[in-house]
Amino acid sequence: MPPILTAQEMYIRQLTEEALGLLRQERTTDFEHFARDVHPYDLAQIYHELLPHDQNRFLHLLPIEQLADLTESTGNAEQVKIFGILGPERSIDVMQQMDEGDLARFLHELTPAKREELLSSMQVSSATSLRRLLSYPPESVGRLMSERFIAISAEDTPRAATEHIRRVASISDTISYLYVTDEEKKLVGVVSYHDLFFADETAAISDLMKKRVVTVTVTMDQEEAARLIQDYDFLALPVIDESQKLCGVITVDDILDIVVSEADEDVAKMGGGGKDIDFDTKAFVAVRRRLPWLILLLFIGLVSGSIVGYFEDTLQQIVALAFFMPMIAGMTGNTGTQSLAVVVRGLNGRKLTAPTVWKLIRRELVVGVSIGICCGIIITLIAYFWQGNWVLGGIIGISLLATLIIGTLTGTCIPLLLSRFKVDPAVASGPLITTLNDILSLFIYFGIASRFLGMLG
Amino acid sequence: MPPILTAQEMYIRQLTEEALGLLRQERTTDFEHFARDVHPYDLAQIYHELLPHDQNRFLHLLPIEQLADLTESTGNAEQVKIFGILGPERSIDVMQQMDEGDLARFLHELTPAKREELLSSMQVSSATSLRRLLSYPPESVGRLMSERFIAISAEDTPRAATEHIRRVASISDTISYLYVTDEEKKLVGVVSYHDLFFADETAAISDLMKKRVVTVTVTMDQEEAARLIQDYDFLALPVIDESQKLCGVITVDDILDIVVSEADEDVAKMGGGGKDIDFDTKAFVAVRRRLPWLILLLFIGLVSGSIVGYFEDTLQQIVALAFFMPMIAGMTGNTGTQSLAVVVRGLNGRKLTAPTVWKLIRRELVVGVSIGICCGIIITLIAYFWQGNWVLGGIIGISLLATLIIGTLTGTCIPLLLSRFKVDPAVASGPLITTLNDILSLFIYFGIASRFLGMLG
Repeated sequence: MPPILTAQEMYIRQLTEEALGLLRQERTTDFEHFARDVHPYDLAQIYHELLPHDQNRFLHLLPIEQLADLTESTGNAEQVKIFGILGPERSIDVMQQMDEGDLARFLHELTPAKREELLSSMQVSSATSLRRLLSYPPESVGRLMSERFIAISAEDTPRAATEHIRRVASISDTISYLYVTDEEKKLVGVVSYHDLFFADETAAISDLMKKRVVTVTVTMDQEEAARLIQDYDFLALPVIDESQKLCGVITVDDILDIVVSEADEDVAKMGGGGKDIDFDTKAFVAVRRRLPWLILLLFIGLVSGSIVGYFEDTLQQIVALAFFMPMIAGMTGNTGTQSLAVVVRGLNGRKLTAPTVWKLIRRELVVGVSIGICCGIIITLIAYFWQGNWVLGGIIGISLLATLIIGTLTGTCIPLLLSRFKVDPAVASGPLITTLNDILSLFIYFGIASRFLGMLG
Repeated sequence: MPPILTAQEMYIRQLTEEALGLLRQERTTDFEHFARDVHPYDLAQIYHELLPHDQNRFLHLLPIEQLADLTESTGNAEQVKIFGILGPERSIDVMQQMDEGDLARFLHELTPAKREELLSSMQVSSATSLRRLLSYPPESVGRLMSERFIAISAEDTPRAATEHIRRVASISDTISYLYVTDEEKKLVGVVSYHDLFFADETAAISDLMKKRVVTVTVTMDQEEAARLIQDYDFLALPVIDESQKLCGVITVDDILDIVVSEADEDVAKMGGGGKDIDFDTKAFVAVRRRLPWLILLLFIGLVSGSIVGYFEDTLQQIVALAFFMPMIAGMTGNTGTQSLAVVVRGLNGRKLTAPTVWKLIRRELVVGVSIGICCGIIITLIAYFWQGNWVLGGIIGISLLATLIIGTLTGTCIPLLLSRFKVDPAVASGPLITTLNDILSLFIYFGIASRFLGMLG
């Protein structure tokens, strides 16, 4: 396979050539124009394509605003490297231009001493608001929000509001709504840029604004906020504190990142343990993250073995029972994983009410029984034609029916119970459900078989 | 568990009471005001809370625009019901107000005859653009985009552009950017509302606009477009056709839906078969969707059984081999599923280059060998202390080492191969990988065991 470049990769390569040309010919003004014209994400891509020597020159010639944008688009390790190259003074300037949420995430990863050092070199106002952001719980809306919103008064005219916005515009360039607050800073309404833009000059903001505003609270879980933005198709949501005061905004692009990382977590959950492993993770890091899970599962797997050991006499008399062991254990695991997949996605950022839970359990029970009957009949026939023994066929069919019902319920109830008791449902990963179902299914299978042993002759 | 209402559910209940009060007192004007003030998503929620009789009244009193919004927020079955209640004439009015992408998705689900009937009752311009949307491939950007964008000319002044926008404003109320086209309708730049809003009156649009525009093509896969919006943090992307002409826009809210449904698909993939099953799916629909997969897996599972059958003599001599069978098969499945989870998320909307693929395979090989050595040593010791036989311990340890390496590689390579040959990687679901690994692991295990049978005495 020759390396295939996508259109996007070709575009980045072309931009990189252009940037290198300007850097090497020391056309600094042209380079600045170039940097202002290219999207921050592309700047980050170009930066990654460059050799270390060129990277340094690239960073030193970028205007502060573009440096801030570029730094926001890179990962934590790269950010540390960039600030190292820029030196303390320029780094502080860049940090003060960065999105507060992104900067808070960067600071969160540092040692407390290093974080304090950086915060104390910043302007007091920036440092205060960053300290506030960092005081919210890690997965809360407060950590994600930006405090750079525009609040206007309901008594303003569109013209006055426009003048106000023009004065403070630079702090809020990506925000699509204007929030209307009263004298106590409580949120009373919302106006879109679009509505303000086309407003009759004589109207008051109070006529233009929507009064029913969907809000999130600063301590709310990020996943819940993500679900609201998704359901309502908003571009941003206002964040209020416990006294109903407007204290920030979260935007759809932050939410998109949350939704993607939730999805990654769910898939990792289904895969069992592989959390935080991606294409770039080093082999030994991946081993360290996956091994503890596998060793736990190894020991649980031995429980299945000891069940087989317990029924050694039965097995020695009818070795044919061993032929159907992998199929029964496997099928129980499979149906459990299918149920788990439905529950894992369904739980996402949603609170379940009791009627929903019962409806779901009832449905999965019906599913388990129906699937059990179909598969049970099929395997009874197969076992009879293969082994020429109706009793053996019946034992295997009934065992499969029983284990498929149990498997479906395990895959449904375990994650529901864990989430009910606020245990991290990541514990109910696919492999764990599969391994538990292995144990249950072998116990049922050999239990039924040894009960009917006399009839097997 | 008493039913627990979330704040959101309480809010909807309160709105429903309010709506019911207005409906029953026949305060139609107040009801219209109420409907205009409530978010479309909440209107849909209220609608779902009402009894059928009230639902009809609710729909008949809603203004057309709110009806269109409500219909966009509901599923296909509900849409059919709503149009049934509204009657043909009002339905056509509502459809002409709906988002074209949403309407195209609704029409796509209908029979060709019914679709034609509806299209022929619409205004020619709407019908033409819907027919065009429906002509694009199902998963392409063309199906998702809206043709309601605003194009302005580079020679315009901000004032002229504003006037133009004001005239056509109603068609584009949710769009955040203005696209600049030349006389051939080719895209030459983009201006945000925000920039236009704060522009110097004497500037030309060509001074304000960004000339490097990230675009998507009309036939591009929706997942790829989703990745671009995610990477660049855009609110919308312009869509161009093969002759570079601007033909539509896709917005971040559509993309959010795509990202979520991709994630659902990935989890379903890991769970095997459970695609399109959620909390509201009827039991028998769920059975119909899950059963084919399980029956296939049942037959594949019997292959494992026939491997055990093939080694019947070996097993009869050393029944203790059966004790470790579930553990070996289970562990191979588990490590395969972990690798699969990494690949499934990594493949999402991304094209893999050859170096990435080889790097990944090499890493997973290292992971498999390391995990295999650790688990192999542990199980050798356990088997020795349990069965008091070093040879048996060695056989089980070496088998586990071999099967864990194979399991890791299967979980990595099968989805990669499928995606390389453009087979739907949903085929490489978790249960399939697990079942295949069952077969491989039993074959290796019994193969090694029967080789060393003589030494086991």
